[in-house]
Amino acid sequence: MRAQKLSVGKAVKPIDLETRLTDDHHQALKLWLRLLSCTNLIEAEIRNRLRAEFGITLPRFDLMAQLERHRGGLKMSELSRRLMVSGGNVTGLTDQLEKEGLVTRADDPVDRRAYTVKLTPAGRALFTRMASAHEQWVIELFSGLTANDKTQAQRLLAKLKLHVAGAQATQ
Amino acid sequence: MRAQKLSVGKAVKPIDLETRLTDDHHQALKLWLRLLSCTNLIEAEIRNRLRAEFGITLPRFDLMAQLERHRGGLKMSELSRRLMVSGGNVTGLTDQLEKEGLVTRADDPVDRRAYTVKLTPAGRALFTRMASAHEQWVIELFSGLTANDKTQAQRLLAKLKLHVAGAQATQ
Repeated sequence: MRAQKLSVGKAVKPIDLETRLTDDHHQALKLWLRLLSCTNLIEAEIRNRLRAEFGITLPRFDLMAQLERHRGGLKMSELSRRLMVSGGNVTGLTDQLEKEGLVTRADDPVDRRAYTVKLTPAGRALFTRMASAHEQWVIELFSGLTANDKTQAQRLLAKLKLHVAGAQATQ
Repeated sequence: MRAQKLSVGKAVKPIDLETRLTDDHHQALKLWLRLLSCTNLIEAEIRNRLRAEFGITLPRFDLMAQLERHRGGLKMSELSRRLMVSGGNVTGLTDQLEKEGLVTRADDPVDRRAYTVKLTPAGRALFTRMASAHEQWVIELFSGLTANDKTQAQRLLAKLKLHVAGAQATQ
């Protein structure tokens, strides 16, 4: 993905897909690959630490995080939407967590066919410990950036996100 | 995740998990959530466009991209590692693509038990069209950033990636 600049008097390298691109095109693709690899690297690291220190998978952690944020409980359909995973997967995750006494199901007072899922006290206690460790990991993983770097990165990503959201809306 | 600053003479808000964090801690967590949401938003958009315009899933596109990069073909184990998905999933993806005439399997000359997967000419032609569209989408999605913004973002993400890779190595 390296940009090649051609100059008069030098041997011209064979034209391939990459050299046809302008520098700006290179920049966008390189930046997307960098963004993706950074996110994947950090997510993989968090996933590994959750498994090593708490014996828990990232999807289970994410499910518990949603329940922690919604103390009144969430319906399976809501959980599925928030976690962006299929209903079958959410049912499987919930079954496991229920078996371990970390979540509990309760009949929905409004919709008889549905039920809501909540953290148990044990689930909440475990989640609090995990969230605290998770927070420390994130602080540590991002400590290669100065406070000013973080501010800059936040600003640039906000700008990017706004543009992408706009591009979706006009589709 | 908003930081709350306390000042003398004003009513002190109840202390919760968030207010115990320093601004710097907030910054790291906020930045990680922003990075994750930006990446997911862009990936979802690319996923949707691949489905709408080419009727192809992202994992199938990624598999074809790996084969395009390795013209000599790849073993299933190599494909699985590069795509970071399980062997069973790679077999399923390959079966589908083979049925549509986009990839072909060939016996491995060295390891009789293994076989390599390659793009067919039809697969290569389709991938070229998809890669070109994909490139345009990325350019468009990142066009909310100026060239200078992109350079800054690239630099900050490089710094972050280097630090995270170091944190992994010392674990």
